[in-house]
Amino acid sequence: MKSLQEKIVKEGKVLSSHVLKVDSFLNHQIDPKLMKEIGEEFAKRFADEKITKILTIESSGIAPSVMAGLELDVPVIFARKRQSLTLTQDLFTADVHSYTKQETNRIAVSNSFLTKQDRLLIIDDFLANGQAALGLLDIAEQAGASVAGIGIVIEKGFQEGGNLLREKQIRVESLARVQSLEDGKVTFAEEVLS
Amino acid sequence: MKSLQEKIVKEGKVLSSHVLKVDSFLNHQIDPKLMKEIGEEFAKRFADEKITKILTIESSGIAPSVMAGLELDVPVIFARKRQSLTLTQDLFTADVHSYTKQETNRIAVSNSFLTKQDRLLIIDDFLANGQAALGLLDIAEQAGASVAGIGIVIEKGFQEGGNLLREKQIRVESLARVQSLEDGKVTFAEEVLS
Repeated sequence: MKSLQEKIVKEGKVLSSHVLKVDSFLNHQIDPKLMKEIGEEFAKRFADEKITKILTIESSGIAPSVMAGLELDVPVIFARKRQSLTLTQDLFTADVHSYTKQETNRIAVSNSFLTKQDRLLIIDDFLANGQAALGLLDIAEQAGASVAGIGIVIEKGFQEGGNLLREKQIRVESLARVQSLEDGKVTFAEEVLS
Repeated sequence: MKSLQEKIVKEGKVLSSHVLKVDSFLNHQIDPKLMKEIGEEFAKRFADEKITKILTIESSGIAPSVMAGLELDVPVIFARKRQSLTLTQDLFTADVHSYTKQETNRIAVSNSFLTKQDRLLIIDDFLANGQAALGLLDIAEQAGASVAGIGIVIEKGFQEGGNLLREKQIRVESLARVQSLEDGKVTFAEEVLS
């Protein structure tokens, strides 16, 4: 997605050969117009999949997911990283390790909102090691829901997550695929249709 | 806001005389169309205020804020509840106690994204004791930004937050104002123009 790639080049900060900070439009400050474009692009790519719900994870997955949900006219569910007191029972859970934050979070989705009849589009902001995506796939499986694919805003193609998911025959649509962050520079992979 | 009140009556679950669960459209599952209406309503109410940015807090504040930001054509910043390793310095912080979760979180906003020139609209999903709103106001003050007002999706009018803020001469616009949750029933207050 060209406008996204341009935004990454213009505003992304390469902190190391594996850390790209996009806090100015995705992970802390959010650009609503870009999120709308992103949502529309996800909706277009999964238009024929009869999606019934979008499954994402708090917090940075929410904005692109809500825009995709608006376009596809389906609800969005975000997995919570910690349980709250008003959400204590009847949960699907999975453990997700974050290499960036060096911590493991239990993610949870109420079993009221996912059923065997659901056909899910999973959306997340980043795909790196694939741990969050695997956790969401685990939850979808617990619910007996089918998964049409995974929509990713920025894939770090030099980390293992993308291969891991594609080897499982899961359709992964990344709107920007970063091939390298070497020498403080963002290089994108050729667009790969999966 | 009528469609919001109807949604609360239809889908809200009164768990006690002070806990209203709206996990089916706001706090866990999200209704994107309703979020769009909510965003448009906030944008309408603050249309003349020359808002430059929206300030909210993860996670449930994000969806309504992004829709309001889209309508007002301004960026959204969400305060994080915990620091991540890629976001460690140059932060405005405030401590926010949650009575629901019985915990105090430090909320943080990067000082790159708020300036003295900013005129903020603060948005949150719920207003109960007002702790989150006060934390966000504190952060706005640290940045030297002015605050046009606070947009709240659901105000629990029987808790102290609304009065606390209005006594400080802060404009509070609540799209649904719940007067009582007694007897398992949601009763709304008369619409109050602030």
